[in-house]
Amino acid sequence: MTVLASIEEQDIAALMRDMGIHARKAALKLAQIPSAPKTDALKAAARKLRENAETILTANARDMEAARTKGISAAMLDRLALDPARVEAMAAGVEAVADLPDPVGRELARWSPEHNGLDIARVSVPLGVIGIIYESRPNVTADAGAMCIKSGNAAILRGGSESFHSSRAIFDCMAAGIVEAGLPEHAIQMIPVTDRAAVGEMLKLSDYIDVIVPRGGKSLISRITDESRIPLFKHLEGLCHTYVHASANAAKAVDIVVNAKMRRTGICGATETILIDSSIAGRLLPRIAEALVNKGCELRGDETAQAIDGRIKPATDEDWVTEYQDAIVSIKVVRGVNEAVEHINTYGSHHTDAILAEDADATTTFLNGVDSGIVIVNASTQFADGGEFGMGAEIGISTGKLHARGPVGVEQLTSYKYIVRGTGQTRP
Amino acid sequence: MTVLASIEEQDIAALMRDMGIHARKAALKLAQIPSAPKTDALKAAARKLRENAETILTANARDMEAARTKGISAAMLDRLALDPARVEAMAAGVEAVADLPDPVGRELARWSPEHNGLDIARVSVPLGVIGIIYESRPNVTADAGAMCIKSGNAAILRGGSESFHSSRAIFDCMAAGIVEAGLPEHAIQMIPVTDRAAVGEMLKLSDYIDVIVPRGGKSLISRITDESRIPLFKHLEGLCHTYVHASANAAKAVDIVVNAKMRRTGICGATETILIDSSIAGRLLPRIAEALVNKGCELRGDETAQAIDGRIKPATDEDWVTEYQDAIVSIKVVRGVNEAVEHINTYGSHHTDAILAEDADATTTFLNGVDSGIVIVNASTQFADGGEFGMGAEIGISTGKLHARGPVGVEQLTSYKYIVRGTGQTRP
Repeated sequence: MTVLASIEEQDIAALMRDMGIHARKAALKLAQIPSAPKTDALKAAARKLRENAETILTANARDMEAARTKGISAAMLDRLALDPARVEAMAAGVEAVADLPDPVGRELARWSPEHNGLDIARVSVPLGVIGIIYESRPNVTADAGAMCIKSGNAAILRGGSESFHSSRAIFDCMAAGIVEAGLPEHAIQMIPVTDRAAVGEMLKLSDYIDVIVPRGGKSLISRITDESRIPLFKHLEGLCHTYVHASANAAKAVDIVVNAKMRRTGICGATETILIDSSIAGRLLPRIAEALVNKGCELRGDETAQAIDGRIKPATDEDWVTEYQDAIVSIKVVRGVNEAVEHINTYGSHHTDAILAEDADATTTFLNGVDSGIVIVNASTQFADGGEFGMGAEIGISTGKLHARGPVGVEQLTSYKYIVRGTGQTRP
Repeated sequence: MTVLASIEEQDIAALMRDMGIHARKAALKLAQIPSAPKTDALKAAARKLRENAETILTANARDMEAARTKGISAAMLDRLALDPARVEAMAAGVEAVADLPDPVGRELARWSPEHNGLDIARVSVPLGVIGIIYESRPNVTADAGAMCIKSGNAAILRGGSESFHSSRAIFDCMAAGIVEAGLPEHAIQMIPVTDRAAVGEMLKLSDYIDVIVPRGGKSLISRITDESRIPLFKHLEGLCHTYVHASANAAKAVDIVVNAKMRRTGICGATETILIDSSIAGRLLPRIAEALVNKGCELRGDETAQAIDGRIKPATDEDWVTEYQDAIVSIKVVRGVNEAVEHINTYGSHHTDAILAEDADATTTFLNGVDSGIVIVNASTQFADGGEFGMGAEIGISTGKLHARGPVGVEQLTSYKYIVRGTGQTRP
């Protein structure tokens, strides 16, 4: 890949349009390629990643130095940093995607209407061209690229400027694997300039890109939502709730709540608000509070919760709509499952919400009533993850309802077409 | 329904926002309602339509008179006109939707990952709130409204101003059926003003409307595409092709091509371009041309086609991208299936395309290669229809790839959620 030094060397709009045209052509070819070459390409790419680990780490060192000079945050530096173990994990990840069943060409349904005798099949096909816009994590280049290839889609990748050299080194390995297996050269492309204007031009390419997957923080996603003329698979915030019903098993509830909040506080499946029934709060809330405080969690709650446990600080209205991504939790005492459902539908982010209960009616009301992609009974919200779902890999967790909801795996990167077989039928 | 006399009586933005809030609340309730009340509501609505046929026809006469005064086209007048038979057909259509299987609550997949023992089910749920924007056909009020209710979605209907009174009379019947069966009052709402500004405000309600279904001509759809911040199920033009391969059965080919073009020229599944292999064109094209001319079809073709049959007039580049919706067809002579596939993917609208062939390899190449929602072998493109597919009713035929492709029936008006059942699992 040639890296263009600056915007003056090329008209960005023309560059992006060319990439779009190339991607569409590659996509039409990819849609007709059987499983084996796609698997081969990913296996070859994984091998290239291992063989070129040193080149990748050198490129990463360059990015890290520039990032440190720019004074970016420690959290961002950690997301940017690669080491031999992370490169190996990336290669293994690409192999894991290679080993998934081919999501393309599955017969999703087949029937024959009696009155015309046509043989109608709904068959999975690739979406076409997928644009991935991400920030500092260079491994997205390999993960997302691999998922697109596995699902027969062409990909246009746009990494963050701070991870540019790392992503480029990884991209070169992916591209080499693709060429080695004889897939179309433009099956994966990476935008060769870091100019912000390239994103704006990319979001206009609705003729050439079928869906955009934004992977990053709120400000990235909100910019893309505003600008895009292309549909998005949006992974918005995970403002997840765990509701402790009166019928909950107390010991399990303490364990699950602590895990849901504190296992990893920075992931989207982390619980941010605990709802607990008033009839058991007096007895159970102090045990939950104790266990959370022991793990270093700050507690904020409504007046009832504060009255029950003195360690709970006052929560404001802002707390119910805040995804802390930190060791802080908000706690509300509710009167039954309907109030819990209403709170979640009002303040939640339609991501993942759990009920802890032994009562079947309450469970059913909760599972049916909560309007979220994932609803869980008697387990931790931290299971909201494509890997935990057995989907192999995910490109994000969709909080939208259209096309893909919940973890977006390779199956969700497909559409379908109807194949209709006749024997000469004309329509009366 | 109160009809507001003019924009001054109400702030349109506030009106639309209120409708959105009501719709979202109704949708959350509808999602939890079992099959029987939804079916009952539609049966009651059908009965109301029959009982109030006279009121509906009187309202329609008022619309027709205003339309004639405005001098609208004969085609539009025909779409607007109702008579007792059309009202009966509308009632029967609502009953047919009532009798469809409930598309909500289907278990689409269920599995249990070994390493965590969770029981994971993917279950169909309503999309939520669907906005329908349509033009002169008043029956859309009943058809689309019924499909939304059947699939547990709340609907906000916006009919064309020329069919306002007819649509309102129909809407009143639907609303009465809904109230009679005890469904939420705002399960279906109709915008009570005819101001164009209401559409603009509606398209901003991304917090309250999940998907917009535009039903109308190109200018309506292009305006909505430009303005909408809400995803669309787009039914764009149907620029359909029928490709006659060298291995086609000649007699069947003539019948199918004539039916595909001429059965009804105004529907989206009508063939607009015939592609025919050069090796058989000399023999078969004159027979096809003869049959089409006998039906009153104008023929336009490339130079080779013109040389073969003198009745074929010259086609310009514009012809390959024109959806005539009329008794005109463009004809191109191609050298084999790959050229046919390339022509279709370049000039087509990804709607419906057919191959007439007895050769299995050519058929496979065509079915895999053509990037359209419906690909047909040895049958007429005019079968592109939800009813013909056995889907009962359709709200349109999607030419997009996301969520719904091809005929959009009640199943396609659903999303899914993951229901995860645990026994106390925490994530390691």
